[in-house]
Amino acid sequence: MSAARRTAALIAVGDELVTGDRTDKNLAWLGKELTQLGWEVKESRLMGDDEGRLVGALEQLMGECQLVITTGGLGPTLDDVTRHAAATAVNKELEADAATVAGLEELWRSRDSEMPAANLRQALIPVGADLLRNEHGTAPGFLVTLGDARLACLPGPPREMRGVATDELFARVREGSAPARRSLYLFGLSESRLADLLGDWMDRDADPQVGVLASTGVLELKLISRSGDLARLEERAAAVREQLSSWIFSEEGGDLAEALVSALLERRISVAVAESCTGGAVAQRLSQIPGVSEALREGLVTYSNDAKAARLGVPSALIEEHGAVSAEVALAMAEGLAASSGANLVGAVTGIAGPGGGSSEKPVGRVHFAVGLDGSFLATERTFPDRGRAYVQAWSTNTLLSLMLQALREGR
Amino acid sequence: MSAARRTAALIAVGDELVTGDRTDKNLAWLGKELTQLGWEVKESRLMGDDEGRLVGALEQLMGECQLVITTGGLGPTLDDVTRHAAATAVNKELEADAATVAGLEELWRSRDSEMPAANLRQALIPVGADLLRNEHGTAPGFLVTLGDARLACLPGPPREMRGVATDELFARVREGSAPARRSLYLFGLSESRLADLLGDWMDRDADPQVGVLASTGVLELKLISRSGDLARLEERAAAVREQLSSWIFSEEGGDLAEALVSALLERRISVAVAESCTGGAVAQRLSQIPGVSEALREGLVTYSNDAKAARLGVPSALIEEHGAVSAEVALAMAEGLAASSGANLVGAVTGIAGPGGGSSEKPVGRVHFAVGLDGSFLATERTFPDRGRAYVQAWSTNTLLSLMLQALREGR
Repeated sequence: MSAARRTAALIAVGDELVTGDRTDKNLAWLGKELTQLGWEVKESRLMGDDEGRLVGALEQLMGECQLVITTGGLGPTLDDVTRHAAATAVNKELEADAATVAGLEELWRSRDSEMPAANLRQALIPVGADLLRNEHGTAPGFLVTLGDARLACLPGPPREMRGVATDELFARVREGSAPARRSLYLFGLSESRLADLLGDWMDRDADPQVGVLASTGVLELKLISRSGDLARLEERAAAVREQLSSWIFSEEGGDLAEALVSALLERRISVAVAESCTGGAVAQRLSQIPGVSEALREGLVTYSNDAKAARLGVPSALIEEHGAVSAEVALAMAEGLAASSGANLVGAVTGIAGPGGGSSEKPVGRVHFAVGLDGSFLATERTFPDRGRAYVQAWSTNTLLSLMLQALREGR
Repeated sequence: MSAARRTAALIAVGDELVTGDRTDKNLAWLGKELTQLGWEVKESRLMGDDEGRLVGALEQLMGECQLVITTGGLGPTLDDVTRHAAATAVNKELEADAATVAGLEELWRSRDSEMPAANLRQALIPVGADLLRNEHGTAPGFLVTLGDARLACLPGPPREMRGVATDELFARVREGSAPARRSLYLFGLSESRLADLLGDWMDRDADPQVGVLASTGVLELKLISRSGDLARLEERAAAVREQLSSWIFSEEGGDLAEALVSALLERRISVAVAESCTGGAVAQRLSQIPGVSEALREGLVTYSNDAKAARLGVPSALIEEHGAVSAEVALAMAEGLAASSGANLVGAVTGIAGPGGGSSEKPVGRVHFAVGLDGSFLATERTFPDRGRAYVQAWSTNTLLSLMLQALREGR
């Protein structure tokens, strides 16, 4: 791994991408693949079918990076401008590739119909370019060199683009291997508290470089080796692991449900959940994991007070005294669920997701949780910021999953 | 709409977007909204957390376009470089916004803990910038002017970005009006069958122009007036409505759960669901709709056969004879749920989501549904293509929601 990695830039071409009428599916895939191939991807662009503007971008990016890849704009119609822009950017004429012309003619002969003249546009590539054969569609791609930089143009439909990139391009542009990295997944810690705890380990030029991605309370802490010093990477990972052990729930992936199900299956422990304000989201998250049917007994969405009483045996008097959103009711839900489902591990949640139903005493965002494992129960309260119903539900869901995982790990 | 529309460019900031570790969800949404607001979006970029490079892009794009919008890179950590790059690009210093500082301090006081120092970075905005308040998170955005060009910096999490853009930004950057349009939402019809039914109304140069967007069986049929001839738009909308009435479920929005809940609340009808293969997704979709607590009695995720028997009274003999995935068991689940929950409208679903559990007789993707309204029940079977567990679950969820809505509308 050299210190100065060679750099790449990507462009997805099409008016419909810029206006949001279609969502690009190529840039993220290509970015990931190129990173794996050892390239440092500097930026990616969505650009309209504007030949002049595209020429300018190609010239700029080929001046800055050693590899530029475009997707799209290689079809037969007049608004497909990529091949003309590419030829201009590398100062070459376009010429028809004989094999591609023959293939197109053969295709139309087999359909017993005359080939529309526009179709021949698809066979044009810059003089001196390498053809990138397209086994998945009619427009081939090409790879052309100007000075120190290479430009690859790939078709736009994701299936064709992936095919041509995998079959034809990647072997020609392999740089080395991706930088070594470790990811640790945490829950229950804020991003800013994490930044304080890690201090200058998070400096932009630290080695390994430490980055954070946050999503509904789950933090992905990424350690990426810049120098290729693997001992240093492992040493830093071990230090992070020690400092943050109370919050780390996985080093495999960031899905709390997956971590919980995998722990349940490993220990052959059955589970059931009773949900009020999350409305089934916890059960749904668990049910997304293949193999969960070995562990998941049932989920009850006891939305109404009647259902809490009828399904879980929560005494109406308890609801009247403490309200449906209370530690007492959360505990009664968990206890009732453990008794009626027979599951070893049970989780219950009741709260105020909003927008209505809040009060000064019990604001929107107030949520009570209870978790039970083999007859031992614990209640927990959280008050999430009132940032909308979906927000409170999503945080409540992750919190219950995390509390259940914690109970399992602590054997409580 | 004038001939020379003013132009905009977008930048989504984050290493994880360029490397494909996370897929950007902001650019397509912003591109669509800005087009609606009368802007011509020239290009969109994904850029890493590289301050120098970002400054260069901002300077270039503010030279070419009248509006540049960034998303992301406004968090509290050192790899959040957007606000510093923006300040450099517009030749301003950063200063702390007093109201934002006060809000952050208040937030941490309410948590009874000391605010991490890193948090204060989030309050920094360029001198002279307009603050764009963020009601959905802690990092505000800002809007700053340099010469003829404006630069808006928005937070990166899609929910926050959309909130700040909608609440604070759009009113300040409205350019004109978008073309008149009508949207109709359909379920149960394939895209190609729809194209056949509509024939040359879907021609690219028809007026109104007709477009289709498909998502898990929901088709959004968009009619966009090209000429501004509103009478013609309404006439075509009426003709489409008549021809496709059996499939249209809404003209307000494409969420089947929202359409169902709104019909339930309007008619004061209660609902309950029993789910096996969808694992709580139907209840979860219903529970996302504000006000649903007036209608939703409960949801049961009867994943195991024991739960189907204990909670819904499905006879074990019936499961043994026909299998848990059968019309008979779906009907028994719906009947048992109607009896035990007392809800007027009930829905049940049992199927094989995969990856395991399929057979030649009952392949992965086979799903049975039953819907009951006031004591009258109907079972329906579907076999979805086996494109993965999440695919089968998502189609099953939309199908049950659609069947329940249909039952309600037909008063069956």
